[in-house]
Amino acid sequence: MKRGYEVKFIQSAKNEKVKQWKKLRTKKERDKTGLFLVEGEHLVYEAKEADAIVEVIVTEQYYPKLAKSRFSDDQIFMIASSLEKQLSETETPQGIFAVCKQEMDQEVKGTRFLLLDAVQDPGNVGTMIRTADAAGFDAVVLGHGSVDPYNSKVLRAAQGSHFHLPIIRGHLNEWIDRLKEMNISVYGTALQNAVSMYEAKLDSKFALLVGNEGQGVSEELLQKTTQNLYIPIFGKSESLNVSVAAGIFMYYLRGK
Amino acid sequence: MKRGYEVKFIQSAKNEKVKQWKKLRTKKERDKTGLFLVEGEHLVYEAKEADAIVEVIVTEQYYPKLAKSRFSDDQIFMIASSLEKQLSETETPQGIFAVCKQEMDQEVKGTRFLLLDAVQDPGNVGTMIRTADAAGFDAVVLGHGSVDPYNSKVLRAAQGSHFHLPIIRGHLNEWIDRLKEMNISVYGTALQNAVSMYEAKLDSKFALLVGNEGQGVSEELLQKTTQNLYIPIFGKSESLNVSVAAGIFMYYLRGK
Repeated sequence: MKRGYEVKFIQSAKNEKVKQWKKLRTKKERDKTGLFLVEGEHLVYEAKEADAIVEVIVTEQYYPKLAKSRFSDDQIFMIASSLEKQLSETETPQGIFAVCKQEMDQEVKGTRFLLLDAVQDPGNVGTMIRTADAAGFDAVVLGHGSVDPYNSKVLRAAQGSHFHLPIIRGHLNEWIDRLKEMNISVYGTALQNAVSMYEAKLDSKFALLVGNEGQGVSEELLQKTTQNLYIPIFGKSESLNVSVAAGIFMYYLRGK
Repeated sequence: MKRGYEVKFIQSAKNEKVKQWKKLRTKKERDKTGLFLVEGEHLVYEAKEADAIVEVIVTEQYYPKLAKSRFSDDQIFMIASSLEKQLSETETPQGIFAVCKQEMDQEVKGTRFLLLDAVQDPGNVGTMIRTADAAGFDAVVLGHGSVDPYNSKVLRAAQGSHFHLPIIRGHLNEWIDRLKEMNISVYGTALQNAVSMYEAKLDSKFALLVGNEGQGVSEELLQKTTQNLYIPIFGKSESLNVSVAAGIFMYYLRGK
């Protein structure tokens, strides 16, 4: 039996599978199914490595390049190249996509957490997930009002870090309580009523809480933290980009 | 004489001024004239503060809100609201623009420099200019192959920092020589053949050299530096976003 004949080949945009995959571009469908769609070689192979893949979708052109032995036959779908644009959200699609399972394990483990309060820009959220991964953090928790972490732009900016550490959605109010019960210090970030990070006494077990660029962290959450910190501004700019600030904080708090 | 009558009011898209302003959206025209266009209240007032404004352009709607006493009559142009979209590069224009002079002063002063080797993403370049300002750097030098710093996206991401420190275009090869002659250490950034920033012996007078995300700093320049540094990756991500990495480096090198 030739292998090529076993793989499902989809040519019509009206195919039910294609319709389902397209729907995964909406948050509603992702929430309902617990699935999400990634695209591009790098993300697909990161997903594979993390055992998160349900289905892998390749164009006819890409098919010969696919490392087929790494997938089971019934996971692979080949699509007509004309359908690629229907699934892709990039300008230069690479011909490879995967449907993945969202991480549902919400267990709290570790000593370093990043909490995001209503961060809405997908590029910023993805970049912060990537930085949290690089800095060796144990989880990222997205509070109410934050962008869906399985949004394609977040996935793209995070460059696969979704598959390296737990990305959790939760109520930050409850998370702060829980972390403090675990003796993990919670450091809010604020421009006022805060201590310079250089002058603060810092613990090695901590959660860093950052907010959106416009409003920062909500007053209610800032009241609940162990301590609130700021990065000194030595020049004339009013503030830093949130994902740059989060990076400076994460590496500073982490230390050597 | 009533003030309102003195201000020039432009209603036609065919007006020569409108045509000139629109042309400033191209690098070619900006290079030829030494001018650039900013939009939005924040940038216009930052430009005013820095004495960089040649002309200020407001829509009819915005006109009553303009702090007219801060400009001379012949600097102010009022345009029909229908022309706003022709000048704006944002989705929600604020009705105020300014034509500004590019900083031509290329004198080297100071002890902390950021050098950008072929960084092409305007958001990254703007964010790095903003961070360099915040970290109290003395200048940003953009080498060959970097995006035009007067591109509207760079200006937007930098949030006015263009008006706080010199933004210079130059040959990085020559700059590295010149800085070293001034006893300023030049630190390249690289993932290989480099020292962890935490372990490096660092000087207080330095230039940080970062490259584009794909290729990093060119091999030729890395050969000329005083020392090449990297930020340790503690997790599983392969690298950091360039503007986040630059932020971590700048604040680390700057120290307290």
